[in-house]
Amino acid sequence: MKVAINGFGTIGKRIADAVSKQPDMEVIGVSKTRPNYEALVAIEKGYKLYVPKDKIKKFEEHGFEVRGSIEELINIADIVIDATPAGVGAKNKNLYIKFNKPAIFQGGEKSKVADISFNAMCNYEKAIGKRYVRVVSCNTTGLLRIISILEKAFGVKRVFATIIRRGADPKEIKKGPINAIVLDPPHIPSHHALDVQSVLPHIPISTVALAVPTTLMHIHVVRIELSKEVNEKDIVDILEKSPRILLVEAEKYGVKSTAELIEWARDLGRSRYDIPELIVWMDTISVTDGKIVTLIQGVHQESIVIPDNIDAIRAILKIATRAIDSMRITDESLGLKRWW
Amino acid sequence: MKVAINGFGTIGKRIADAVSKQPDMEVIGVSKTRPNYEALVAIEKGYKLYVPKDKIKKFEEHGFEVRGSIEELINIADIVIDATPAGVGAKNKNLYIKFNKPAIFQGGEKSKVADISFNAMCNYEKAIGKRYVRVVSCNTTGLLRIISILEKAFGVKRVFATIIRRGADPKEIKKGPINAIVLDPPHIPSHHALDVQSVLPHIPISTVALAVPTTLMHIHVVRIELSKEVNEKDIVDILEKSPRILLVEAEKYGVKSTAELIEWARDLGRSRYDIPELIVWMDTISVTDGKIVTLIQGVHQESIVIPDNIDAIRAILKIATRAIDSMRITDESLGLKRWW
Repeated sequence: MKVAINGFGTIGKRIADAVSKQPDMEVIGVSKTRPNYEALVAIEKGYKLYVPKDKIKKFEEHGFEVRGSIEELINIADIVIDATPAGVGAKNKNLYIKFNKPAIFQGGEKSKVADISFNAMCNYEKAIGKRYVRVVSCNTTGLLRIISILEKAFGVKRVFATIIRRGADPKEIKKGPINAIVLDPPHIPSHHALDVQSVLPHIPISTVALAVPTTLMHIHVVRIELSKEVNEKDIVDILEKSPRILLVEAEKYGVKSTAELIEWARDLGRSRYDIPELIVWMDTISVTDGKIVTLIQGVHQESIVIPDNIDAIRAILKIATRAIDSMRITDESLGLKRWW
Repeated sequence: MKVAINGFGTIGKRIADAVSKQPDMEVIGVSKTRPNYEALVAIEKGYKLYVPKDKIKKFEEHGFEVRGSIEELINIADIVIDATPAGVGAKNKNLYIKFNKPAIFQGGEKSKVADISFNAMCNYEKAIGKRYVRVVSCNTTGLLRIISILEKAFGVKRVFATIIRRGADPKEIKKGPINAIVLDPPHIPSHHALDVQSVLPHIPISTVALAVPTTLMHIHVVRIELSKEVNEKDIVDILEKSPRILLVEAEKYGVKSTAELIEWARDLGRSRYDIPELIVWMDTISVTDGKIVTLIQGVHQESIVIPDNIDAIRAILKIATRAIDSMRITDESLGLKRWW
């Protein structure tokens, strides 16, 4: 299947690399709007470069070989992944309609941009054959993974989560609090609760979000009231055999922070030190009153949604009809934790 | 009443200034162990300097006028406030016993160092005439203020709080995460829950704590299950007339972060930009299921315990027999929000 990547920034470049590793799809081209260092990376990796028609000349003056306009890229694709900045995806939708192409949007877009908001572990089957699918954002993906696993195993009655967001991504030099904790937003709930409900509408959930001056990962303090009584071992057992979850022992291996986690990913030689798995600190799993599970989890904001984008392609194009069939191929190809 | 301040660091220097402003007590001297810039500040402000016997010469070589040894300071005091680093207070206790002086310890010490762990709004009366009193730490003080107010008004069934700690104080140059969120500790509950129970033993509480790279204030996400049904206005009404709580409107006045709060305190000309009041963001007060209150509060780690130290002096020396009588004098003299 021919995949066009519209937007080659933080998410787009990772999706391009991930698509390249799949046996059943290929990247036919990527788009850039500025002839910057990421455009150089695209060329270096062998991706064909497509740019806005009015910028072809500018790119060529910068020495880039341009294969054509973004319209031409979309025209030859079986599917488009829109990884443009938040809000731009909605504007691009007309283009995808015009060329009659299915498209995947990112979580920065409003949920109404698509027929369905998507997370592979929650609602893969509902996305099969859909035209427009929105892969929810990084924080929502992290929440959905933990909630869906615990819901299937024990039933979930209520969720409360505090999200401590990284203030900016590593490459962003104009964003983020310098010396502050920012109430982001200064009201409760944050949009994440509604975003979780865009995928799991029946879950009662409230979320609080704060931004802090760090770039590496988000941290969630999650408190989930279950329907059944459990103990800590029940939770560990179920998470150990779940896809896209990595249990980390903080005390045993000295991994008590996002910085040490990322150092570990760098040492392992992971591309861009990405951690698409949801990190759950085993030491923090705590059960009170029999049914209330509290834990701390880590979300690598740049990479956690990449596997779900790949699965969304297979759902839309009906390449795999069961979530598990797509997820196995995705996770094996990307070198994620083995769970099957 | 003659007050000796043992330790003139972050807390000690603020207590000295606060004692100086009270009508019923005076600072008879402060102690320092190193002849640094804070010792200069003590001299500049007119505090008499006492130092360890074996360091008198060193201080004098640095040009400081030393009034005597720390033992001599303690000997002439009616009461000692120990504001030495965590753990040192417990070692100093023998000295206070030797000279038969009542003493106040800070929250860095273990609760067993004292006869009672103290917060003026929670248990002033129980500290009256006690010999050794421990004023709990900044985060615990913030939690106790909100819990005690809501308990008196509506009854508290259960508390869950996530504490996002500043990684270091402004003057600390060797501490704190640089680019990380640290699970501090990497297990649940953190010690804060136990510390709250050292003052309010009947409150079921769990806490989670994380450290982040900022110096200005701590942030708490507090979730309290009440015994009675309430709405948001009930909570605002009770907090508005409570001592040592400042309600802040985030959206209305553009105060959505710790940085903007501190800027406001600087603009007001507050000494050292201190905010001894507990900050509660009014916009975040949220009631779900009738009885669960969620809100975000801010704790200025350097100053929130100062009023409680002053009140602890009055309780120990029986200067005031009711909390409210001491708190009014303290808060008026320190220029805190008016609530009486």
